[in-house]
Amino acid sequence: MILTECTNILIRFNEADPLGIVWHGHYVRYFEDGREAFGEKYGLKYLDIFEKGFTVPVVNVQCDYKRSLRYGDRVVVETRFVDDLAAKIKFEYILTNPATGEVVAKGSSVQVFLDKETSSLQLITPAFFMEWKKTHGLV
Amino acid sequence: MILTECTNILIRFNEADPLGIVWHGHYVRYFEDGREAFGEKYGLKYLDIFEKGFTVPVVNVQCDYKRSLRYGDRVVVETRFVDDLAAKIKFEYILTNPATGEVVAKGSSVQVFLDKETSSLQLITPAFFMEWKKTHGLV
Amino acid sequence: MILTECTNILIRFNEADPLGIVWHGHYVRYFEDGREAFGEKYGLKYLDIFEKGFTVPVVNVQCDYKRSLRYGDRVVVETRFVDDLAAKIKFEYILTNPATGEVVAKGSSVQVFLDKETSSLQLITPAFFMEWKKTHGLV
Amino acid sequence: MILTECTNILIRFNEADPLGIVWHGHYVRYFEDGREAFGEKYGLKYLDIFEKGFTVPVVNVQCDYKRSLRYGDRVVVETRFVDDLAAKIKFEYILTNPATGEVVAKGSSVQVFLDKETSSLQLITPAFFMEWKKTHGLV
Repeated sequence: MILTECTNILIRFNEADPLGIVWHGHYVRYFEDGREAFGEKYGLKYLDIFEKGFTVPVVNVQCDYKRSLRYGDRVVVETRFVDDLAAKIKFEYILTNPATGEVVAKGSSVQVFLDKETSSLQLITPAFFMEWKKTHGLV
Repeated sequence: MILTECTNILIRFNEADPLGIVWHGHYVRYFEDGREAFGEKYGLKYLDIFEKGFTVPVVNVQCDYKRSLRYGDRVVVETRFVDDLAAKIKFEYILTNPATGEVVAKGSSVQVFLDKETSSLQLITPAFFMEWKKTHGLV
Repeated sequence: MILTECTNILIRFNEADPLGIVWHGHYVRYFEDGREAFGEKYGLKYLDIFEKGFTVPVVNVQCDYKRSLRYGDRVVVETRFVDDLAAKIKFEYILTNPATGEVVAKGSSVQVFLDKETSSLQLITPAFFMEWKKTHGLV
Repeated sequence: MILTECTNILIRFNEADPLGIVWHGHYVRYFEDGREAFGEKYGLKYLDIFEKGFTVPVVNVQCDYKRSLRYGDRVVVETRFVDDLAAKIKFEYILTNPATGEVVAKGSSVQVFLDKETSSLQLITPAFFMEWKKTHGLV
C-alpha cells in the first residue's frame, strides 16, 4: 500500500535569486506544501495531529538538487509516506518539472512526536497514529 | 526629545530577486529589524511589551522605494519613534546605503495594543507605555 | 470598465508567527500573488512586461490590517487595476477571509517603468501599455 | 589545517512559528549566513567565485535538528570547510545556542561549479579553487 499525493506549485517571482533560479532554501517549503497536501488528503495535517495531543517537529531534512527551477516554472511535488516501525513520520519527496517531465529534486524528512503539553519525546508510536496506519492499510 | 536607533544590515544573497535587486517585500523585515533594535536600546521589544500584558500587532505599514539595493550591499535602518496621543506605537524608518549616503527607502508603521489574554483592543494608552514615555522625556 | 481578479491562497504553517497569526510582512507577498494572477488573466505578468522591454519595480506599497489570519485559514485577494494618467501601474488589494466574509486587509501598490537595458525611468507611458489599456477598454 | 568561522545570529520574531519555535526551513538560511561569513573571512564569497567565472549552486543540503530555537534566542553557526578531491565545495555546520552551550543542529551542504556563461558542470576542480586551497594550506 503506497500513500502518495501530488501538489502543483507555481514558482513565485520572489523565490528566484539573482541568477534567475529558485533559491535552494525554498525547496524545504515546497516539501512542507507537499506534506500538507498529503495531510489534507489522508487526514494527517498539523492541526489534525495537534488535536490528537501532539506536535511533530522535523528532526531531519535532506534534499538532492538535480536541475534548477526558474520564475514562471511549475513544479509538481510528489509526497510519499514511508512506513517505519519507530515512532516517526517519514516522507520522501520527488519534485518534477511538468513542462519537461524531468526530476528537479529528491528529498526526505523525518518528524517525531512530542506531547503538546509537556514537549516530551514519544518513544512509542502514539495510538492515534497506529490507528491511522490501520485505516490506510499499512498495518 | 527624539528617540532613534540605527541598525546595520547586510543584504543576503537570497534576498535579491532575478533582477539582482532586493525584493521589495523584504523591506518590511528590515523595518522589523530596526524596530527590534530600537526596542533593545529603549526597552520596548516585543517580549518587553508581552510581559506587560499586551501584544502589539502592526495595523498599517507603508514604504516608498527610492533606490534599489543589491546583494552584497549594506543598508542602515534608522528607526525613529513618532509620539502620538492615541493608544498606538508609531515609527518612521529611513533606509540609507552607507556606501553612497543615498536614501534607499522611507517608511512607517503603526501598531495597536491588544490585551494578550482577551485580544481586546486598548483604546486608552496602557499605563506601562505612558510610564515608558515619561522615562524617555516624551511627556 | 473595472479590471479585477480574485486569487485564493491557503495560509501556510510557516507564515504564522508565535502568536499564531500571519506575520504582517507576508501580506506583501499575497499582494504579489494577486498581481501575478491579475497579470495571468489580463496579459500583464512580469515576464510579459519584460518582453516588451521594461521592468516594473514597486515604488510604493501600503497595507491596512483589519483582522488577523491564522494557519489553516484561506484568504481571497481581490486585485483591482487603478487607472492613472501617469506612467505608472497602480493596484488596490482587498483581502477577505472567505469563511467569514470579513475584510482582512486593504492595500495598494505603485510600480514604475524602467527600460530593462538602461534602467532609465520612463516618464511617458510606454506604447505597449497604452495599447494594453485600449485592448481592455480603459482608454 | 581546519578552516572554520563562527557567526552569531539573532533569531527574528518572524522566524518563529505558531509553536513559538524557529521554523525548520530557516536553518538553511542560517547555513548560508554561515557560509557567507566563512567566504568573507577566507575570500570565498559568491561574488568572489562569480568573478572567477563560476556559479556554485547547492546540490545537496541536509540538517539534523537536535533542539529548538525560540524568538529572542541567539544561535552561533560554526561553518567548517570539508576538503574533498572532487570538484565540489563541502561545508559542515554546527549550530549552538550560546546561552546553554547546547548543540541545536548539525548540517552539511555540497556545491558544484558551473561555468557562469555556459552553465556547464565542471568535472575538474577549477584552477582558482586549487590555488585557494594552496593559499590556505590544504594542498
